[in-house]
Amino acid sequence: MTAHPLTHFDAEGQAHMVDVAAKAETHRVARAAGSIFMQPETLALIAGGSAKKGDVLGIARIAAIQASKRTAELIPLCHPVALTRVAAEFAVDREHGAVHIEVTAECTGRTGVEMEALTAAGVGLLTIYDMMKAVDRGMRIEGIRLLEKKGGKSGHWHAEQD
Amino acid sequence: MTAHPLTHFDAEGQAHMVDVAAKAETHRVARAAGSIFMQPETLALIAGGSAKKGDVLGIARIAAIQASKRTAELIPLCHPVALTRVAAEFAVDREHGAVHIEVTAECTGRTGVEMEALTAAGVGLLTIYDMMKAVDRGMRIEGIRLLEKKGGKSGHWHAEQD
Amino acid sequence: MTAHPLTHFDAEGQAHMVDVAAKAETHRVARAAGSIFMQPETLALIAGGSAKKGDVLGIARIAAIQASKRTAELIPLCHPVALTRVAAEFAVDREHGAVHIEVTAECTGRTGVEMEALTAAGVGLLTIYDMMKAVDRGMRIEGIRLLEKKGGKSGHWHAEQD
Amino acid sequence: MTAHPLTHFDAEGQAHMVDVAAKAETHRVARAAGSIFMQPETLALIAGGSAKKGDVLGIARIAAIQASKRTAELIPLCHPVALTRVAAEFAVDREHGAVHIEVTAECTGRTGVEMEALTAAGVGLLTIYDMMKAVDRGMRIEGIRLLEKKGGKSGHWHAEQD
Amino acid sequence: MTAHPLTHFDAEGQAHMVDVAAKAETHRVARAAGSIFMQPETLALIAGGSAKKGDVLGIARIAAIQASKRTAELIPLCHPVALTRVAAEFAVDREHGAVHIEVTAECTGRTGVEMEALTAAGVGLLTIYDMMKAVDRGMRIEGIRLLEKKGGKSGHWHAEQD
Amino acid sequence: MTAHPLTHFDAEGQAHMVDVAAKAETHRVARAAGSIFMQPETLALIAGGSAKKGDVLGIARIAAIQASKRTAELIPLCHPVALTRVAAEFAVDREHGAVHIEVTAECTGRTGVEMEALTAAGVGLLTIYDMMKAVDRGMRIEGIRLLEKKGGKSGHWHAEQD
Repeated sequence: MTAHPLTHFDAEGQAHMVDVAAKAETHRVARAAGSIFMQPETLALIAGGSAKKGDVLGIARIAAIQASKRTAELIPLCHPVALTRVAAEFAVDREHGAVHIEVTAECTGRTGVEMEALTAAGVGLLTIYDMMKAVDRGMRIEGIRLLEKKGGKSGHWHAEQD
Repeated sequence: MTAHPLTHFDAEGQAHMVDVAAKAETHRVARAAGSIFMQPETLALIAGGSAKKGDVLGIARIAAIQASKRTAELIPLCHPVALTRVAAEFAVDREHGAVHIEVTAECTGRTGVEMEALTAAGVGLLTIYDMMKAVDRGMRIEGIRLLEKKGGKSGHWHAEQD
Repeated sequence: MTAHPLTHFDAEGQAHMVDVAAKAETHRVARAAGSIFMQPETLALIAGGSAKKGDVLGIARIAAIQASKRTAELIPLCHPVALTRVAAEFAVDREHGAVHIEVTAECTGRTGVEMEALTAAGVGLLTIYDMMKAVDRGMRIEGIRLLEKKGGKSGHWHAEQD
Repeated sequence: MTAHPLTHFDAEGQAHMVDVAAKAETHRVARAAGSIFMQPETLALIAGGSAKKGDVLGIARIAAIQASKRTAELIPLCHPVALTRVAAEFAVDREHGAVHIEVTAECTGRTGVEMEALTAAGVGLLTIYDMMKAVDRGMRIEGIRLLEKKGGKSGHWHAEQD
Repeated sequence: MTAHPLTHFDAEGQAHMVDVAAKAETHRVARAAGSIFMQPETLALIAGGSAKKGDVLGIARIAAIQASKRTAELIPLCHPVALTRVAAEFAVDREHGAVHIEVTAECTGRTGVEMEALTAAGVGLLTIYDMMKAVDRGMRIEGIRLLEKKGGKSGHWHAEQD
Repeated sequence: MTAHPLTHFDAEGQAHMVDVAAKAETHRVARAAGSIFMQPETLALIAGGSAKKGDVLGIARIAAIQASKRTAELIPLCHPVALTRVAAEFAVDREHGAVHIEVTAECTGRTGVEMEALTAAGVGLLTIYDMMKAVDRGMRIEGIRLLEKKGGKSGHWHAEQD
């Protein structure tokens, strides 16, 4: 029987958490990004944020970091990973009416941390939606994607257009 | 002191989980959607899925439903909600090289379930990314948004363009 | 299209968390049981338990109660339930070389608590296995089953042989 | 057999999650407090906090709110509770070299929310410890206590000395 | 004072999470099994399952894999383990009216993964119960047991009768 | 730009989960303590505890151990840690009307386990509060503090006054 083209399935097509025991413990890095688009007035409320005025981005950053640690609970076939670093940066983009997030996740282990970075980006943006939804229900989350991946057998990968 | 324009912050700008005790227990519905774009060959692998060949969408559906129940853990200022129904539908769109998800969440309670529907949509799409990433790292998640919201004081809301 | 014979699937066979909003909020009770069989020497170690000597059953009881509260996280299509009572009783059965557990779970809600009682019974027995496995790896967990169910549209149900 | 003096144990002394089904669904409020004592230099680092300089208290507030929602997972015999409001306030006390936290938790339900308020206070203070421990390992958390409790059969309770 | 016969308890009989720091990091494998017995008509509904008709076993497989990752949360004295592989196989047994599950769990670490395999087996079977309970409340889960264990100081262990 | 005085914040004051990849994997130990003060009658109820009479301290010990494994979920910037040992000891102090807890946590890893020991101590004491609150709402948790820390670059640290 031939192997399945997708590693998350065995030769008979049954899902499994794939064997990574033979993989080397290397330093692994993943960077992911995403954006949330909103009305200019909504963005202005975020941009004026500070500890005194309601720190939307500070809260979203914490939610993103915490979500990265829950990735293996949320994504069924992900391996548990001992993250060694997670950082989330936000950029307020008035020209396009958006907040952009970029998350870097790192570990020293047998499996990559792309899903940790992507999950953190997604939850960080959803947290912004939650806090601003009372004034703007029409916000849209766009462009959640991997930017870069280092470490492991597949080597260094860069997204084409970022 | 005047109220904060965002309900998740008090008059001094401190975050809180807002008081909903006085809200009526009504039937609440939220529908959310999103998409993941990929290479045609990647989509073909998903579209051929079945229990025998690796049921990517069946697994993503379970991940979406389970994520809806974890929303209050992931989104810091969300209230815990006793969901009465969650359903997630996928559509394979060969023309645009995408899989679309639409999630409906419902409860009978004091607070809306938009975040539950949006979180389920996001995690469902991230789960597809996880299972297909070995063949296509460049996939992008786009258009996570609220489609409709019913119940509660703010009444019936529809997204303009869906 | 005709309805699916299993309520957890829609007419097209897709899994969902079934709609319970229209169900009445009634008092619901479920009783579940199960057993773990072991060597007589293993059972003697448990039976001699006390706070001073290693309280295996006290710890298993706590694990069972805590697991009942995690049921909706573990069983994908279960609704979150606000349990109003959980109790777990153990019986040491020297004749058959077994420990029996019986769990009662209760709520006032729109959906039954069978899975909460069954999950608690299962995790309680697994916890006994964990604590005794260093002396007896061949233990077997048997007869996890529902004993009784009250409340809701389906009325009062009793297992035939318990 | 006479009842156990502690409601969390049955007449035979076995722990259980006590039956609250017969209790009225009333509005319940609990206020809890606590403090963390530290070196003046440590406190100065916190007091200068802002979104730009490292918002220690903003992060601790989010941790406190999130912990309140996990109370039933952490405290074995606690009932799951649908919190309707949680707020956490910090006060910087230069005179005593301390940060004080006060948490208010509320629900409309069959059981009180003291543990939710106390758990939030504890985790909020532990989060401050975590962020400041690199400069001051000798910090001490003191005075975690209930200030006030309203709702339910036991009526209105106030701590004597607060 | 002499050591306690059970490693999970200290010499005074107090439970602890036992010290494994001195154990070697070796490759560890555990296989566990279990069964659920049901009416022939119930089994026929499962056996006819496919992505289109309601994939009961596909969902139970995901639940089993996800539960293996939560083992240390459910079983009080278990160590957290970085699983490197989890697979769950089901067999439909028309002769005995049963579905059998077999789970393999692996890690490279200081402690065995028996509990991870056993917990996955138990939750997989409970998930089948949940999905079929509307048509057959009398199903019974039987024979949750360890089949094999490799790695670590205790060496290779096989169950006698499997 | 100069580094932030607190390691949990970057040079711009944004919180992150700090990079520990370059730290050595060493054996790390942390001991933490705390106390709960109560009425003499309340303490007498605990001191008389046994498996038959309601084992308050046995349950609190399990809650403490389990909480240590959830630390990274509760404390936002904590790294996930593979604990190799956790033990919790209680002392009943009739002279001062208190129960004292002391927790030891250990791992072989890149980051310390102070927060795991402190979180366990806090949750163990909160669990005592929960079980005794029906008879004594005025209990106070005091003196949650680090006693000792070994391993890692910062070496051996002892609290001055314990």
